Amino acid sequence: MASVCIEEHILDVVDYPKPGIVFKDISPLLADHAAFTATVDALAAVGRAADGAVVVDKVLGMEARGFILAAPVALALGVGFVPVRKAGKLPRDVHATTYALEYGEATLELHTDAVAPGERVLLVDDVLATGGTLDASRRLVEQCGGTVAGVAVLMELGFLPGRTTLGDLPVTSLLTV
Amino acid sequence: MASVCIEEHILDVVDYPKPGIVFKDISPLLADHAAFTATVDALAAVGRAADGAVVVDKVLGMEARGFILAAPVALALGVGFVPVRKAGKLPRDVHATTYALEYGEATLELHTDAVAPGERVLLVDDVLATGGTLDASRRLVEQCGGTVAGVAVLMELGFLPGRTTLGDLPVTSLLTV
Repeated sequence: MASVCIEEHILDVVDYPKPGIVFKDISPLLADHAAFTATVDALAAVGRAADGAVVVDKVLGMEARGFILAAPVALALGVGFVPVRKAGKLPRDVHATTYALEYGEATLELHTDAVAPGERVLLVDDVLATGGTLDASRRLVEQCGGTVAGVAVLMELGFLPGRTTLGDLPVTSLLTV
Repeated sequence: MASVCIEEHILDVVDYPKPGIVFKDISPLLADHAAFTATVDALAAVGRAADGAVVVDKVLGMEARGFILAAPVALALGVGFVPVRKAGKLPRDVHATTYALEYGEATLELHTDAVAPGERVLLVDDVLATGGTLDASRRLVEQCGGTVAGVAVLMELGFLPGRTTLGDLPVTSLLTV
């Protein structure tokens, strides 16, 4: 993971968004070229076999923070980038999936032609928390006929059941916090 | 701009989001590695002098689609990436600015420490339409004490007064549609 310590560029913001929560702010990491580059390289490595060969056909990122990491990872791997968006943002035919939030629910959408049948997809996001967004994205990829080859996240909240939600999907996190 | 025709990877979606509007969908461009790379390279060139030297200190991208282009441009230039976000998404002290939409208004925010006094910033977005978002972002940079060195967008809607809104800011668009 290069000679850069990624963790020291992540800032704890206490009591955000509400009392008792410690928010992990990645802004300092994104503002530091060496740390951002090391992060992208480490996430992109999840899309390669041991011999360096790229083993995914697309990289999928989730609106909005996921775009910041997933787009550079797609470019680094030499494959296409696909955005998963909140409801009503994609202009053509979409698959949609709804998942539970702490209060209420949310809907994510993916263009029906964004992933071709048989394609292997890497999901990239900043945080694995409950796994709801990533699990919904997996279902969208499968509705297109594709397969999720793996999940790569910058950090994982170890006290939440994200990996359980994702079942047998291989998950790589650069940090557990 | 390499040997790739960027324009042929942008899809016209008629009557979206409402009748009479032709939406420019960049999903096919993002899904094509060569076209996405050529786009990032061309946008990054706006942050360089004629001799290739990088002349900006930060690249700033606007939520959400702007993130997809601005983050790779920052990485290509070797400078930090800074996100401008919708109200309530950034966890620390922010500058905020409100601007008019077709119906109503919107607020954008920037961390107060995102740009240091005297820093030169490149604004990157996918579309220059009315210029409202880019102008609001310029004001946020100036509230931090920084300067906007230029604006780089993938495409410009030539029938809208975006350049007028941005006044004397240098604007580079790869396409006018």
